[in-house]
Amino acid sequence: MLQTGVIDTYTPYSVIGGKPALEEMAQLPQADLPFDINDIHIEINDRGCAIEVPLDENEQLYGFGLQFGSFTQRGLRKQPIVNDNSLKDLGYSHAPETFYVSTKGYGIIVNTARYTTFLCGSNKKLQQAEQLAGTGSSKVATSTEELYQNRENSDKVYIDVPGAKGIEIMVLTGPSLQDVVKRYNLLSGGGCLPPMWGLGFKYRVKGDASQEDVLQYARYFRENNIPCDILGLEPGWQTATYSCSYVWNKERFPDHKAMIDQLKKEGFKVNLWEHAYIHPSSPIRAAMTPYSGDFLVWNGLVPDFLMPEAREIFTNYHRGLIEEGISGFKLDECDNSNIGTGSATWCFPDMTQFPSGIDGEQMHQMYGSLYINTVDDIYRDMNLRTYHNYRGSGLFMSYMGGVLYSDMYKHKDYIQALCTQAFGGLLWCPEVREASSEVDFFHRLQTVLLSPMAMVNAWYLRYAPWLQFDYDKNGEGIFLPEAKQYEDYTRTLINMRMQLVPYLYNAFYAYRSEGTPPFRPLVMDYPEDERVMGIDNQYMIGEGLMAAPLSDNENTRIVYFPEGTWYNFYTNEKYEGNNEYEINTPFDQLPLYVKEGTLLPLAEPVPAINEETTFKLHCKVYGTSNATCQLFEDDGVTYDFEKGKYNLVTLTAANGKVDLSRDGDYNLNRYEIADCEFIK
Amino acid sequence: MLQTGVIDTYTPYSVIGGKPALEEMAQLPQADLPFDINDIHIEINDRGCAIEVPLDENEQLYGFGLQFGSFTQRGLRKQPIVNDNSLKDLGYSHAPETFYVSTKGYGIIVNTARYTTFLCGSNKKLQQAEQLAGTGSSKVATSTEELYQNRENSDKVYIDVPGAKGIEIMVLTGPSLQDVVKRYNLLSGGGCLPPMWGLGFKYRVKGDASQEDVLQYARYFRENNIPCDILGLEPGWQTATYSCSYVWNKERFPDHKAMIDQLKKEGFKVNLWEHAYIHPSSPIRAAMTPYSGDFLVWNGLVPDFLMPEAREIFTNYHRGLIEEGISGFKLDECDNSNIGTGSATWCFPDMTQFPSGIDGEQMHQMYGSLYINTVDDIYRDMNLRTYHNYRGSGLFMSYMGGVLYSDMYKHKDYIQALCTQAFGGLLWCPEVREASSEVDFFHRLQTVLLSPMAMVNAWYLRYAPWLQFDYDKNGEGIFLPEAKQYEDYTRTLINMRMQLVPYLYNAFYAYRSEGTPPFRPLVMDYPEDERVMGIDNQYMIGEGLMAAPLSDNENTRIVYFPEGTWYNFYTNEKYEGNNEYEINTPFDQLPLYVKEGTLLPLAEPVPAINEETTFKLHCKVYGTSNATCQLFEDDGVTYDFEKGKYNLVTLTAANGKVDLSRDGDYNLNRYEIADCEFIK
Repeated sequence: MLQTGVIDTYTPYSVIGGKPALEEMAQLPQADLPFDINDIHIEINDRGCAIEVPLDENEQLYGFGLQFGSFTQRGLRKQPIVNDNSLKDLGYSHAPETFYVSTKGYGIIVNTARYTTFLCGSNKKLQQAEQLAGTGSSKVATSTEELYQNRENSDKVYIDVPGAKGIEIMVLTGPSLQDVVKRYNLLSGGGCLPPMWGLGFKYRVKGDASQEDVLQYARYFRENNIPCDILGLEPGWQTATYSCSYVWNKERFPDHKAMIDQLKKEGFKVNLWEHAYIHPSSPIRAAMTPYSGDFLVWNGLVPDFLMPEAREIFTNYHRGLIEEGISGFKLDECDNSNIGTGSATWCFPDMTQFPSGIDGEQMHQMYGSLYINTVDDIYRDMNLRTYHNYRGSGLFMSYMGGVLYSDMYKHKDYIQALCTQAFGGLLWCPEVREASSEVDFFHRLQTVLLSPMAMVNAWYLRYAPWLQFDYDKNGEGIFLPEAKQYEDYTRTLINMRMQLVPYLYNAFYAYRSEGTPPFRPLVMDYPEDERVMGIDNQYMIGEGLMAAPLSDNENTRIVYFPEGTWYNFYTNEKYEGNNEYEINTPFDQLPLYVKEGTLLPLAEPVPAINEETTFKLHCKVYGTSNATCQLFEDDGVTYDFEKGKYNLVTLTAANGKVDLSRDGDYNLNRYEIADCEFIK
Repeated sequence: MLQTGVIDTYTPYSVIGGKPALEEMAQLPQADLPFDINDIHIEINDRGCAIEVPLDENEQLYGFGLQFGSFTQRGLRKQPIVNDNSLKDLGYSHAPETFYVSTKGYGIIVNTARYTTFLCGSNKKLQQAEQLAGTGSSKVATSTEELYQNRENSDKVYIDVPGAKGIEIMVLTGPSLQDVVKRYNLLSGGGCLPPMWGLGFKYRVKGDASQEDVLQYARYFRENNIPCDILGLEPGWQTATYSCSYVWNKERFPDHKAMIDQLKKEGFKVNLWEHAYIHPSSPIRAAMTPYSGDFLVWNGLVPDFLMPEAREIFTNYHRGLIEEGISGFKLDECDNSNIGTGSATWCFPDMTQFPSGIDGEQMHQMYGSLYINTVDDIYRDMNLRTYHNYRGSGLFMSYMGGVLYSDMYKHKDYIQALCTQAFGGLLWCPEVREASSEVDFFHRLQTVLLSPMAMVNAWYLRYAPWLQFDYDKNGEGIFLPEAKQYEDYTRTLINMRMQLVPYLYNAFYAYRSEGTPPFRPLVMDYPEDERVMGIDNQYMIGEGLMAAPLSDNENTRIVYFPEGTWYNFYTNEKYEGNNEYEINTPFDQLPLYVKEGTLLPLAEPVPAINEETTFKLHCKVYGTSNATCQLFEDDGVTYDFEKGKYNLVTLTAANGKVDLSRDGDYNLNRYEIADCEFIK
């Protein structure tokens, strides 16, 4: 860690940073920085803080949190600023981070909540000019694109932190890029382990649904044998939005407690939408007033979550909601509309002053994190894990059981974010709403089922989008002619997700215990393969699976297979590594590929997961006769595993069969082997 | 003027502000502020400077310099930051200004070069919250647009100047909105008076044109009797671009002096493209190095025009170019690519440090102005007026003989900018390049001929766009089947521009002497008419003309006529005021309307304008038998008029004829009356 000058009172690490998992960090291999740490220059001047970090000719950079529009970051100017829209490739996002990692095996965290600009080799300084004399070309550009393409290639990353009077820089080492990311995640205590039911299917119902509507949605899933673990309620559950009262609307929900109980009986968890802007009619409005920023959002108070008093008021009220049986929240609009249009300028201004002394700019960079921490701490105190949705995040949030989402809704960007999320300890949900065609719909559904959260967000749809993906027709209740068939496909696909739950749960355990992102781009697993360096539309899931989603209306896509042999999950077709194949995936299959040597345990699908759920495993062993697989076994809902209440289950394939053994004395047998299959 | 705290060393007024025209300002009517000046609150805090200005329920705001995407500014968050793209309605532009005006008859200038945010009634503070209790709606939004529309309406403008340790606020009074603008322009010495030839037609040739090509373009105009005053050369004239050597390219231009002389004989002025980033091979590179910013742009030095040494080096070199006969420059890329994409990140970073002590952020806000001032001062020293193109401007630039342009190229935005320019003492050119159809082409041509600079910018076109408006086909030399006919239309239209030159020249004299914008939106002339408050696609030209351009592929448009009677310039059709009419304008006419009571002098078109040019005037008198019109008469090229060397010519219509009289003893008779026509 480098420190210069007067550090800001509130930094992401001081405010958000979790408890480092020191033991686990110590188990990572030691590595040296590929440059002398003294070559990082920091200057404090009138403007703020100016930083220079060396950059080698041959390295590629990734990171800056959740990013859309760019995957490799070298040559770009990046501004990791919280915004509800990515604005091309400039760095704005729901969950940006002042953190990048390099293929040379190191990472740079600038521990600031100020709006920071990174010039990632995109700009040259005068001091480098000597080398350049005479490099001018006399070719005359005759198109605007030609004029303005970036033609620079600098040997420094320049970082601009205006307003800072001092700065903290954390330098992480590898040796590998994946090690850097692991170290980063462990710095915040490791990745999150969601409750097991969180890995099931979530459906968010229409915003104005009533109690009866919600129960009707629930019946729909159970009667049609479509698995569903979570129903999400949108703004209509409250007496007032926007901003929020946090009070159940008696007109729509005459007896919400009865509804929650009924849903619980049917195996559903209930998730509630809200945001942190407190409506004049809210019961906590008056108490919160002294602990709020001096600007309003949608006439709502902006609680200063840096004030213990604000957290307490918010927590005490929300505990009541949770105790009635709410399993988690969707925390909306905790990002910002920093850059968009002048007319859609919601959220508190950067000039907002908060009682804690922080300004709006710095609060924006941490607001989502502070908000979800406040809500999640209630669950932690109750020894309950959960798996929220939230829309603003940043540095040091890997430990948080929450998944980001967005309104942007461009499928290619959503797939790319499944790659970029991994560099910053984040989880991303490429949620499905309406679609432009059946191809578009099923490609989106396939992608979301191969993501951290399998969610259909039908907040403005009356019927499930597989019955009618068109917004207007859905509202009119006009179903697709193929509705029944598409419902069958959907059931098949969601069942497939349910089959993967034990495998995914273990991938999350690796995230928790080792910092390994459960969903990550190929460059983390194949750092030596230059052809994967730019691949942002395929990703690894756990150790043995690779996803390659189709997007938009394409009927086939090119899939690149890294070294080794790979198998089509459905057809068992083999693909030789270091090659590209053009592949079609039908609507009722997932674009999923298995690495040779993998023992893949597939659960018999269940309609929903609870503490007692046991999984009958059909094991598939790919291209080998000897393989192992680990599964994590605990109650699935509490933090008791942190006190050792869990088993590590090992599946071992040998001699044409698969055996199960347990390490741990936790008294629960969740997994049993049904059968196995060896694929040559 | 309000002042608080430690004012920045470099502010727009201290750096750019011209000499106030105190005498002319004194002639404006006196007016009171509509609020107590003490109700403007200024707070200096850790973040910077926070300002509150009262805002009445019923007032509308305009301004922030050249703006695209919004005309009325109330309810918006505006960030007047220099950028090469307007990014919707957020305030970014080539020439933004921290200056707004109100329909209540006052203007607020925040005299800072820092990136400033104005919340124009778009955000409410907690202190206003009491009034709001219970205003929440329980209607549930079911679309994203519905969610994020701005629903605030505050009684303050909040202004955020991060990084400032003090601030200067200049408050201008009316009484009318137009008076505020006049006062603002006079504060910088009044508006510019271009050389008379600057109001003729300008054609910019293809970037890679050779000496022979340029002469060929010149012959084309003369042989085909299409008026043209100025030929502009693009980057190809230099030995190296991008960045710039400023050295004539001997391969393309074996004898540029002979070419310039030849063009002069044929009545052409020559304008040269350049930008202020100095190529390694430039003769001024070495000398400029110590007076440049510490970042390069396209490997070019960024001269610190705040340093007298930098100005001197740049000036001494450019004087040589000018003395060879160059009549003006196109100063490109002196704006910024602040927000756009991370990959097209040209221009110096905000963190750049300059020898004068200014940082990149503040330099950006003034760079275009400093650059054109440096170049224009050479002309001023030579007692020569000119009329540059330039791409970055800001506060206090009304005195500058230069017109802004852009790459954005959306015709509706370009028309809107002809309205927004007027609030900030700016001039805008909606230049024509290629087009998507003949309708698009002629509508664009009509608009640019009714703008401050009548320019076709064919920098990437081999042939004139009226022969082929399609980029690719133009490059292949494939002419339109209607090329000859379109050339005829074009000639007719450009001739019409030439007919207007005396009228326009006088409108610019009013700009110079009284501060009245020659092109201005209707709200400046009809402040009592609520229906014009939002009209951003019609504008006044001088006192008696109104333009209502058609855009894109529309064949007709709705034109609103304010009070009084109006005439179609071509058909003499009458339109009654306070009404809308749907009007079609053929390709060979301009969308031009004349106000009742106007004496409109129309010159016989000339191929080009020089110091000796005389104008035979055909006078048209609309809807009255008695009318007058003033014309300004001077050498048309020097600043001698400032020493009284000019005449004011008055045309008087009475008794069925028009008489001409002169006030002044300048020995030149430019104008004579050919005939007159009275239109009832």
